[in-house]
Amino acid sequence: MGMVGGGPGAFIGNVHRMAAAMDGEIELVCGAFSSDPTLSAEAGRQLFLPPDRVYPDFETMILTEKQLPEGNRMDFISIVTPNHLHFAPAKLALENGFDVVCDKPIAFSTSEAEELVQLVHKTGRLFCLTHNYTGYPMVRQAKALVRSGVLGTVRKVVVEYPQGWLATRIEATGQKQADWRTDPSKAGKAGCMGDIGTHAENLAEYITGLQIESVAADLTTFVEGRKLDDDGSVLMRFEGGAKGVLLASQISVGEENNLKIRVYGDKAGIEWCQTEPNTLLVKHEDRPIEMYRTGGNGLSPEATQATRLPAGHPEGYLEAFANLYKAFAVGCRNRAAGENFSIDFPTVEDGLRGMKFIDAVVESSAQNAAWVSV
Amino acid sequence: MGMVGGGPGAFIGNVHRMAAAMDGEIELVCGAFSSDPTLSAEAGRQLFLPPDRVYPDFETMILTEKQLPEGNRMDFISIVTPNHLHFAPAKLALENGFDVVCDKPIAFSTSEAEELVQLVHKTGRLFCLTHNYTGYPMVRQAKALVRSGVLGTVRKVVVEYPQGWLATRIEATGQKQADWRTDPSKAGKAGCMGDIGTHAENLAEYITGLQIESVAADLTTFVEGRKLDDDGSVLMRFEGGAKGVLLASQISVGEENNLKIRVYGDKAGIEWCQTEPNTLLVKHEDRPIEMYRTGGNGLSPEATQATRLPAGHPEGYLEAFANLYKAFAVGCRNRAAGENFSIDFPTVEDGLRGMKFIDAVVESSAQNAAWVSV
Amino acid sequence: MGMVGGGPGAFIGNVHRMAAAMDGEIELVCGAFSSDPTLSAEAGRQLFLPPDRVYPDFETMILTEKQLPEGNRMDFISIVTPNHLHFAPAKLALENGFDVVCDKPIAFSTSEAEELVQLVHKTGRLFCLTHNYTGYPMVRQAKALVRSGVLGTVRKVVVEYPQGWLATRIEATGQKQADWRTDPSKAGKAGCMGDIGTHAENLAEYITGLQIESVAADLTTFVEGRKLDDDGSVLMRFEGGAKGVLLASQISVGEENNLKIRVYGDKAGIEWCQTEPNTLLVKHEDRPIEMYRTGGNGLSPEATQATRLPAGHPEGYLEAFANLYKAFAVGCRNRAAGENFSIDFPTVEDGLRGMKFIDAVVESSAQNAAWVSV
Amino acid sequence: MGMVGGGPGAFIGNVHRMAAAMDGEIELVCGAFSSDPTLSAEAGRQLFLPPDRVYPDFETMILTEKQLPEGNRMDFISIVTPNHLHFAPAKLALENGFDVVCDKPIAFSTSEAEELVQLVHKTGRLFCLTHNYTGYPMVRQAKALVRSGVLGTVRKVVVEYPQGWLATRIEATGQKQADWRTDPSKAGKAGCMGDIGTHAENLAEYITGLQIESVAADLTTFVEGRKLDDDGSVLMRFEGGAKGVLLASQISVGEENNLKIRVYGDKAGIEWCQTEPNTLLVKHEDRPIEMYRTGGNGLSPEATQATRLPAGHPEGYLEAFANLYKAFAVGCRNRAAGENFSIDFPTVEDGLRGMKFIDAVVESSAQNAAWVSV
Repeated sequence: MGMVGGGPGAFIGNVHRMAAAMDGEIELVCGAFSSDPTLSAEAGRQLFLPPDRVYPDFETMILTEKQLPEGNRMDFISIVTPNHLHFAPAKLALENGFDVVCDKPIAFSTSEAEELVQLVHKTGRLFCLTHNYTGYPMVRQAKALVRSGVLGTVRKVVVEYPQGWLATRIEATGQKQADWRTDPSKAGKAGCMGDIGTHAENLAEYITGLQIESVAADLTTFVEGRKLDDDGSVLMRFEGGAKGVLLASQISVGEENNLKIRVYGDKAGIEWCQTEPNTLLVKHEDRPIEMYRTGGNGLSPEATQATRLPAGHPEGYLEAFANLYKAFAVGCRNRAAGENFSIDFPTVEDGLRGMKFIDAVVESSAQNAAWVSV
Repeated sequence: MGMVGGGPGAFIGNVHRMAAAMDGEIELVCGAFSSDPTLSAEAGRQLFLPPDRVYPDFETMILTEKQLPEGNRMDFISIVTPNHLHFAPAKLALENGFDVVCDKPIAFSTSEAEELVQLVHKTGRLFCLTHNYTGYPMVRQAKALVRSGVLGTVRKVVVEYPQGWLATRIEATGQKQADWRTDPSKAGKAGCMGDIGTHAENLAEYITGLQIESVAADLTTFVEGRKLDDDGSVLMRFEGGAKGVLLASQISVGEENNLKIRVYGDKAGIEWCQTEPNTLLVKHEDRPIEMYRTGGNGLSPEATQATRLPAGHPEGYLEAFANLYKAFAVGCRNRAAGENFSIDFPTVEDGLRGMKFIDAVVESSAQNAAWVSV
Repeated sequence: MGMVGGGPGAFIGNVHRMAAAMDGEIELVCGAFSSDPTLSAEAGRQLFLPPDRVYPDFETMILTEKQLPEGNRMDFISIVTPNHLHFAPAKLALENGFDVVCDKPIAFSTSEAEELVQLVHKTGRLFCLTHNYTGYPMVRQAKALVRSGVLGTVRKVVVEYPQGWLATRIEATGQKQADWRTDPSKAGKAGCMGDIGTHAENLAEYITGLQIESVAADLTTFVEGRKLDDDGSVLMRFEGGAKGVLLASQISVGEENNLKIRVYGDKAGIEWCQTEPNTLLVKHEDRPIEMYRTGGNGLSPEATQATRLPAGHPEGYLEAFANLYKAFAVGCRNRAAGENFSIDFPTVEDGLRGMKFIDAVVESSAQNAAWVSV
Repeated sequence: MGMVGGGPGAFIGNVHRMAAAMDGEIELVCGAFSSDPTLSAEAGRQLFLPPDRVYPDFETMILTEKQLPEGNRMDFISIVTPNHLHFAPAKLALENGFDVVCDKPIAFSTSEAEELVQLVHKTGRLFCLTHNYTGYPMVRQAKALVRSGVLGTVRKVVVEYPQGWLATRIEATGQKQADWRTDPSKAGKAGCMGDIGTHAENLAEYITGLQIESVAADLTTFVEGRKLDDDGSVLMRFEGGAKGVLLASQISVGEENNLKIRVYGDKAGIEWCQTEPNTLLVKHEDRPIEMYRTGGNGLSPEATQATRLPAGHPEGYLEAFANLYKAFAVGCRNRAAGENFSIDFPTVEDGLRGMKFIDAVVESSAQNAAWVSV
């Protein structure tokens, strides 16, 4: 794996590295960690990389690695830069025969996302978008329960992602994470909705297997001087008649990453919350509530396969994240071996869905919450 | 207390009776428990009432009781009939000098509610609308925390009331509770939104002290053959700039009465849920989460005054309900004694707010979730 | 109902009154509320009792009421005095033809308890000991699950009752509740173990249907100057081979009334906690955890019969307490009607068990936690 | 790192490998993964190790690696074998200049443990015993709160570790984990108490900073045909006068790894449970309950230093485990650099404490729960 971004002070770069390393399947072999070559070199040193595999920029990395003999060169790149810097390295990597792991949202704009979709189809490379919450065993179980018909026909979806860390204008203090996320030239046209609203959107579509058809959104910038939305509420209509609500907020003081989803069918409902990710509640119409637990009784193969430890050993954010990398590694290996394989990770198409969702909620909000198709 | 409605098979009548009796301040002395005189008489027998205080209808009750000597006659009436039967007994009682306790929503229509407001002002009688959830000690504490400034300026409100009991068409089975609630000739123009959406609306306004200015609502009837909404999602805008979401649903399979509210200011957020009503979480921007408990440390006088038992003795739905009756009884007594008193219970004005809320969400939904003023 | 004790400042007297009144089956008609006749009269006034039914002492009450015509006189007495004042009024009431409700522990000493057992048998009166926690619907459900064999053979019982309110020497401040509970001349030979340890003991035997055969106890007085135990830990051995642990503490700072029980059989385990009394967890060996809820799906008749409201209306301490009074009232009425009836409330025999438990743990602790038979 | 044990089918070997790899500080370079050389070789292949670094036994590994040039050879060994195979590789490694990480309990017998203590002192090598639960940030916070005096003087400790996986005789089915844990020739003199009771003991001493002075234990073998205890309850007395209870069970059906500890001082109490490891409750005598969260507000440096991610990204079992490896790696590196360093991981002395605890509870139980010094 070669990494683009993730230099000193980056939060998500370290997450990707720990997740990729967890199962002993993936090794970080090179990187272009910063747009500042000195910082990139420093990051490489701290990561025990040989200096000649630490590059000043992603172009050099991709083109140089390509020249290395197979087996020596990196197998894929992992892109962990701010949103506006996803597209260029992804494109170059795909065009030069490398698979791609990319943080979300997939790109700065929908047109970039569409070009990536076409490139992936044309090149046949694998593309994994790290909507990491889909990696939790209990999220897999939720999806399996919906698909198996336990819930019946889905009617109602409530998905929410409240955070509180942007309740004040910390971008003005130089906080790096806040800085680019609130800057339209780096984050894109949406703030909160792009950063975490897309996670909620993806989770809802992943679990229900249904696409959001249209949205009516009310986005707000509560913190004075901020240029992008820091809170939003969205009414949703799904294909097939289900309805729902999506909430995303970065000004909900005191909330951590309370990503939570409830899905109600005509026979049962489910409830999952990221703060207690190893529990899934299933509420039936005619018998006691069931509580599924990671590693516990009665789980689907999909949930079991995503679990590393026996019940009672809490698995967390990194383990869920690592499940995407593991599935990606298995996919790469199986393809190399000419074997069939399923794609158990979010793809470039999920990325395009996310961009269309962003477009739709931003447009709806601009039209005072009128309904807009996704 | 004389009761109107609440005969055999009624759920809420019994709740009102238990709540009224709890503190030994109020005695049921008469009633017109059913529109069927035989059933009314039977109910009276079961309640150990003397036969001559059990009336065939509310008109007879009010007019007969009025003739009884003071001290003997009932002090007030409690109306626990379906929505379309609130107005007439309330009006007659007020006009004949009786105070009124009335279940919510206050009336069948806004015009009825407006007439009741005027009558209350004109007659000077006390009117208590049983938005019972405001009686919980931790709801009182939440209100006190907002008022004291602990939350700072309120920005975001998320209030939800999911139930599952109407997920199938049980009204077709003769279930009495479901029957009238899904019948527009008895419930009024809204189903779920009138029945429980108004509770959520009232709770949000009660705790924040802010009025909802406008709503964008998407109401749905999921169960085939039903005539009124059984689910709804509402975007809200409050006076002063706060925003929010209100969810009410009666088709969320497996949910009981999961009334829950979260309010976020620019300094702290609070969270309360009726399934664990004795806990209130306060999430601060700069220190650990605080967990307030009924009867516990650090409570406001308002919360303490609403608590009957030391910490650790869970108080529930009936105790909260009884707090309204108790406050009403104290109010009646103090007024009779010529003393000043505060009104610690929802009033006729709250009832009018609820009707306007119903009007607004129904109209908004009819206009495809356009914004409508409340 | 005539009450003995429960005058101004008493906590539990008010609880008994609210519990007795809840279902409209029982009316407080007289009382001897204090050993101080003036205070007794004052209490009677506050309770709206006619002055001639407020007595200066329990002897006068029992003997006077006995002279009243049937139908006018009280049906039973409720004893809510400190422990050392349970026996005398209970004895006199039984001897004069009155049924008895008595707070726990039943008496000051085991010999008193034994005499009461004999008196109850001899007189044929009903005797209800208010081990109120057995009144919770989910405790009834737990008992039903054990009896139905869902748990298989019971192996392990963990029951605990931590409180924190006696963590400092508040009895020295004149706090009335603390005062008599820490005074061996009023509470008896045990402090914490008598006051709340007996609740835990009773709950364990009630749910499992098994008797504790022997105990090894380590009682402690942590607060300097206190004369009775304020904390204790007990190893237990049950008939049939089950084992367990009982914890009771009044110096566990910050704990309210965290009565909790877990019972494990060879097929399943259950968990119930009084802080969330409407939830019961059942942990199976081979399928997901089940969560039973008061008023919810899949409940036994015993649990349903103890529930007043539909699911989602939290029932609390008073409702559970009221279930004992209700069962007692039904028992009295059925007996009067010559009908068969089951006794769904703790009896005088439970009271004797509690006293023997106190004897055993005190003796064991005095012998450095040697095993002592109960 | 060279690993001893952890071949195919081993659960804990994989845990150690994931934990060691998490922070990019430690690389698995060699191993003797099984007493069967073929299996060892196979494990090495699966782990991508060069064949010449995969050894048939630990003696060969230690003596061969010792011959490799510094920088090439392993820095330390990690022992993840059953209990009876801890001592020999630990001893040989220490004698040959290697640091040691060893799973718990430290050895088969107390005499082995004592010899290891002496060897560590004599050789000056670092020895880390993987009592992994001490690696949780909220456990570190709990310890910091006790040390800072927030709790006041510790009075009461309740620590419990219920599991259910040995509720039936699965060792008879060939389950490898169960097989050696229930075999006295491999596990030692205790079953449940050695396997998880020592975790509970270590956690209690770690957080309180107090040593257990004496115990009164009742150990049981509930499953027929099993040779070691599968359940135990222990009364404890700590230095300084605190008391407590320790529960460990492997027959508590449906329990996962519900390790939970509560510590009460005279000013506050704390509560932590491994099933929700990112939450720590602090219950004060005079103000609302505080809820600390991993990565959240108000944490001590010790907790912060043990946290990898911002609040809201749940950290689990592996992360806590990895904290021990990380601290060990930092210790090794600092020592190599001649720098001072603190030892933030359980040591050989903790291992000896655990063995003495096992001795004491086994002896006490044999004497019918008589008090035995630890």
